[in-house]
Parts: sequence; structure tokens; C-alpha cells
Amino acid sequence: MRVLGIDPGIAIAGFGFIDKDGHKLKPVQYGCIQTAAHTPQEERLVQIYESAVALMDKYKPDTVAVEKLFFNRNVTTAFAVGQARGVIILAAAQRGLPVAEYTPLQVKQAVVGYGKAEKRQVQEMVKMFLKLSAIPKPDDVADALAVAICHAHSSGLSQKINEVLR
Amino acid sequence: MRVLGIDPGIAIAGFGFIDKDGHKLKPVQYGCIQTAAHTPQEERLVQIYESAVALMDKYKPDTVAVEKLFFNRNVTTAFAVGQARGVIILAAAQRGLPVAEYTPLQVKQAVVGYGKAEKRQVQEMVKMFLKLSAIPKPDDVADALAVAICHAHSSGLSQKINEVLR
Repeated sequence: MRVLGIDPGIAIAGFGFIDKDGHKLKPVQYGCIQTAAHTPQEERLVQIYESAVALMDKYKPDTVAVEKLFFNRNVTTAFAVGQARGVIILAAAQRGLPVAEYTPLQVKQAVVGYGKAEKRQVQEMVKMFLKLSAIPKPDDVADALAVAICHAHSSGLSQKINEVLR
Repeated sequence: MRVLGIDPGIAIAGFGFIDKDGHKLKPVQYGCIQTAAHTPQEERLVQIYESAVALMDKYKPDTVAVEKLFFNRNVTTAFAVGQARGVIILAAAQRGLPVAEYTPLQVKQAVVGYGKAEKRQVQEMVKMFLKLSAIPKPDDVADALAVAICHAHSSGLSQKINEVLR
């Protein structure tokens, strides 16, 4: 099963494709989609959508996992992130890919085993699970891989049931 | 000049196409895109995107005006509205249509002449400007027409300059 994890954003959207083979996780490709500040937002949305489409069509994930964000800082930021999230989810849905959402708490729980884990702990576990030589930068990329790992772990049970029934 | 005004939302997105001919405004088509509750959000986003595409391709607006929302109620709602907004703006940008944004204050100022106008006053002015026999329902439709009128009024000056230069 190939999972695409996404940490959506209008300036930087992190993405990470990982393969799950039994209990093993393997990184396939990861990085981020960046759009330049001062670019009109509609153009930025087209860039994000087209990059998401290109990545999905190239790496053909079976499923997409997106971080569900909550923040009180700024509703304007929530709108901007929501818009970026919208076009990415649209790209997935147009390809018939199931989209799963996880809260930061669920991601930490699944990756570190502790819902109140520090960002740094999550990043270290991402590095360890995927046998990377360093923590991926910027944070958005590590976050995208973390949500992908979370989904791979969470879907383990249902996959096991499918294997038994096969 | 044909303006498409939009009041974005995930359950109901109001739309209104109006033609501006000199000082005259004429309603072309208005209504709303609705998606059913309990439908997965990714499916709702595809429905909104495809309806927006179909409407834009049928009524061929020259420009799109969207209400810029601020609300403190609920960041989750802001995300959901942001996602709907994102796919509508994407549809516009993919067609090369300029997208203008107006705050509720700007819309009220332009439609009623008073930034703190009541919702009802805005709706009455929409009815008057467009010579409608009744206030369009639901509110989202009237709001979409209001933002279209706001854009038609606001772009009057730049259009006048263009006419002089022609």
C-alpha cells in the first residue's frame, strides 16, 4: 500500500509518499510544494493543485492522509490553509483516492505513542521509522511523512483483516 | 461586463451572475450549489468544483468576486469554508478569470452606502438594484448577488478610465 501524507499550506505544502509492506515502511519520495509570496492567491492555488496532480499521477498513491489542523491564532490563516487543503483534496478525490484525516493528537499518538509528544520527538521517530539519515527539512516535510506513517499504522488492523479474509 | 459573485460554503454556495452595462445592472442567473450533509467532504468538494466549472463555462463571466469572510465562531468552519472557496477560486483561475475579494464591510458600503448596514437592508438593495420581484432565497444567493454588485460598482472607475482611453 502506498500512502501520500500531506501537510497542507499556501506557502509550503509538505508531501511524503511511503510504501507499507507488511510491517515495513519505506520512503518513496518526499519534499514540498512552495509558492512565492506576493503571487496572487488564485495563482498559488493553481500551482498547488497542479503540483499535487502531477505528484499523484507520477507516484500513484493508494490513499491520501491529511493533517486536520486546529489553531486559534488567526482565522485568516485558517482560511488560507483551508483553501490549499481544498484543492489538494479535490485532486485526490478526482482520482478516486480515499482521503483520511488525522488530528495532530492522533499523529503523535500513532508515531510516538504519546499524544503530547514534542515536535522534535515526532521528527526523530519519522527518521527512525523510515531509516532516513537526517530529519527531513523543512518541518512541513517531516509533518507530511508523520501523517503518512500515522495512516499506515492506523490502517494496519483493517489490512490484517483483509489479508485473513483473502 | 459580466460579474460572477460567490458566497462560498460547503453545504450551500450562493452564486449570482450579473451584467453591467454602463450604470445599469441586470441579473443573468443566480442560485446556489448545494451538497448533501453526510456526504464525504472530498466528494462535496468535487461537486462544488464541478458545478462551479459548469456554471462558469455556461455563463462565461469576465470576472469573479468572492466574499472575504472573517468569523471567530469556529476555526473548523473556517477550514471547511476555506476549502470550498479554494476549489471555486481554482476553477476561476484555471479559466484565466480575475478574482476579486471583498470584506462584508466593503460589500455593505458599496451596496447600501453604510458599512454597518443590516443584512435585511443589503437584501432590499440587491432586490432594488436588480429589479427583482422578491429577495432571493436562501440568504447565500442574496449575498452572492451583493458581492457581484459591490464588484460592479467598485470597478466602475477603472472601467471609466478604460473607456476614456479606448
